[in-house]
Amino acid sequence: MRTNREKRLFHFETPISVSASASAVGCEEWKGPYGKYFDFHDPSDRFGAKTWELAEGEMAKCALNLALKKRKISHEEIDILFAGDLQNQCMASSAGLYSFGIPYIGLYGACSTSVEGLLLAALTMNAQKKVARTAVVTSSHNCAAERQFRLPIEYGGQRTPTAQWTATAAGAFLLEKEKKGMQDSACIRTGMIGRAVDGGISDANNMGAAMAPAVCDSLRTYFEESGEKVEDFDLIVTGDLGTEGSAILEVLCRDVGFSLLDRHFDCGANLYDLQKQDAHAGGSGCGCIASMLAAYFVPKLSRGEHRRLLVLATGALMSPSSIQQGGSIIGIAPAIVMEYEKGEKKRARPDS
Amino acid sequence: MRTNREKRLFHFETPISVSASASAVGCEEWKGPYGKYFDFHDPSDRFGAKTWELAEGEMAKCALNLALKKRKISHEEIDILFAGDLQNQCMASSAGLYSFGIPYIGLYGACSTSVEGLLLAALTMNAQKKVARTAVVTSSHNCAAERQFRLPIEYGGQRTPTAQWTATAAGAFLLEKEKKGMQDSACIRTGMIGRAVDGGISDANNMGAAMAPAVCDSLRTYFEESGEKVEDFDLIVTGDLGTEGSAILEVLCRDVGFSLLDRHFDCGANLYDLQKQDAHAGGSGCGCIASMLAAYFVPKLSRGEHRRLLVLATGALMSPSSIQQGGSIIGIAPAIVMEYEKGEKKRARPDS
Repeated sequence: MRTNREKRLFHFETPISVSASASAVGCEEWKGPYGKYFDFHDPSDRFGAKTWELAEGEMAKCALNLALKKRKISHEEIDILFAGDLQNQCMASSAGLYSFGIPYIGLYGACSTSVEGLLLAALTMNAQKKVARTAVVTSSHNCAAERQFRLPIEYGGQRTPTAQWTATAAGAFLLEKEKKGMQDSACIRTGMIGRAVDGGISDANNMGAAMAPAVCDSLRTYFEESGEKVEDFDLIVTGDLGTEGSAILEVLCRDVGFSLLDRHFDCGANLYDLQKQDAHAGGSGCGCIASMLAAYFVPKLSRGEHRRLLVLATGALMSPSSIQQGGSIIGIAPAIVMEYEKGEKKRARPDS
Repeated sequence: MRTNREKRLFHFETPISVSASASAVGCEEWKGPYGKYFDFHDPSDRFGAKTWELAEGEMAKCALNLALKKRKISHEEIDILFAGDLQNQCMASSAGLYSFGIPYIGLYGACSTSVEGLLLAALTMNAQKKVARTAVVTSSHNCAAERQFRLPIEYGGQRTPTAQWTATAAGAFLLEKEKKGMQDSACIRTGMIGRAVDGGISDANNMGAAMAPAVCDSLRTYFEESGEKVEDFDLIVTGDLGTEGSAILEVLCRDVGFSLLDRHFDCGANLYDLQKQDAHAGGSGCGCIASMLAAYFVPKLSRGEHRRLLVLATGALMSPSSIQQGGSIIGIAPAIVMEYEKGEKKRARPDS
């Protein structure tokens, strides 16, 4: 009998194309090394809203609007919206996106929500012929997250070296299965559901260490089940392990018999200039990998500059209460394989 | 062109059977009119845990264990677990259920999570042949929810007449598509994704009023799209509108041209004896409809005592921050149709 461990890897009968993606970020993200790739930034981090929580919702709305504009379609042509974020009760997604009126599936996968959403969207589009287009949106806001999970930024608390900087960023993706007239695009053919793994870490300022075991578990299962190896991918892209979590991941992988070599790219470790921007162990948050995928990797795949990426978003399942009550932080790492797909028209190279 | 409004109703090519369901509740729920139907209750509401938050996780674990036991299978035979709850960052589900090691999809649909989960599970099982069995678990705990959303119970604050009592309850469902050797069961053939609707209510003590417009929107869309009417169902089962929300729903439905007649059954309005148990407008919480479905409606369908139910779970998308910042409460109401399905063996009638 096959166990559930082996059954979490899916190949989609109908591959799903990412027909457009867009990102909106705050000031620090724009100043970082990938700043020029983001579609929109607000130097005030406020996005015209009165509170940080509402600002995050506006940022998510902005990302979805930009993606719709790129694809030249209306929100009414999106059949289902998959969204979630880090705020208590996922308010950025519901308050920010409800006005689109799109049938809504709320998710919570902590910082792994983007890939969880892409996976569920691909599953749903494979299950129902009439679902032609879906959207996936996730976000995080530094000021909303820090005051909710740790301390308000205004308090100016000292941060530990392993602490990460929650990204002020949102990413939106439009997914389609109809290939007619489609440009070259990024395509999802394979996905794997994450499994919750408890590595015994209870320090909310060291989430990289808490999530690394879940990434190792997902990678190992993926390679065992698919028969593929690290060299079959241009890059293994992870969400927000940061420098600390990435170093731990390398050790864990070596222990179970493989190495990510120089093919590992962690979005958290790369979103900021760690020296100049004082981001300690790197970026984190739902928006970290979502904005990097939307702004950098999906366009690169669409132009054929990458051929095949194994993308693992990383979630730390914890809350302030669970930490205060001495619980450990449970990690989870769902995965998708994103590939270059030739369309009927070549995608134009941007001027930059 | 069909709009997304019309495309949210799904008929599943492969109908999905609820092969087992189980419930675990607290003291008040056990004392209520449906108390005898629940599989397990803990008169202390503590479920052996040191905190209310952890107690909720233990209760969810208990419900899933009982469902597995009824079906005589191991947790390793469950391919995917869909779960979510009301705690910040859905900690009851992740901390309570991670030890099963089942590949995990975290959801947030507020009190509509049970039906959202059943819907996504049915979609996923239709998309992937190899996914044979899934589980859906949701929970809520009065003491954990009240101190998080309003005031700690120990404070003894006065409650308004429209306030509802968050149920201490968990429901677990096992879903299967293989019909061989299956007993008579409840079956899901149709589902509809919810749409976020803002009725302009911002009183956290009147969630029934906030959710009623979303239920009316879902009912209206369902009847228009399916061509069916109220009389085609034994009952229209709603989640936790309570007496206040149920009365508002009747008015809203009349305004758009139909009436639920005497076929409306709201789980929140029925979970407690409203007079004797001082539950004000009724029960609420993810666990309210989840436990009532698992303990009462699924068994009744499995015995053929109900033939066809339209089940709408009701979610209030709000957080303490959103309320404090003056936001209104957004309602959502995903739906499923549950039907009696004849199996190879008749299900035994319980002794009671």
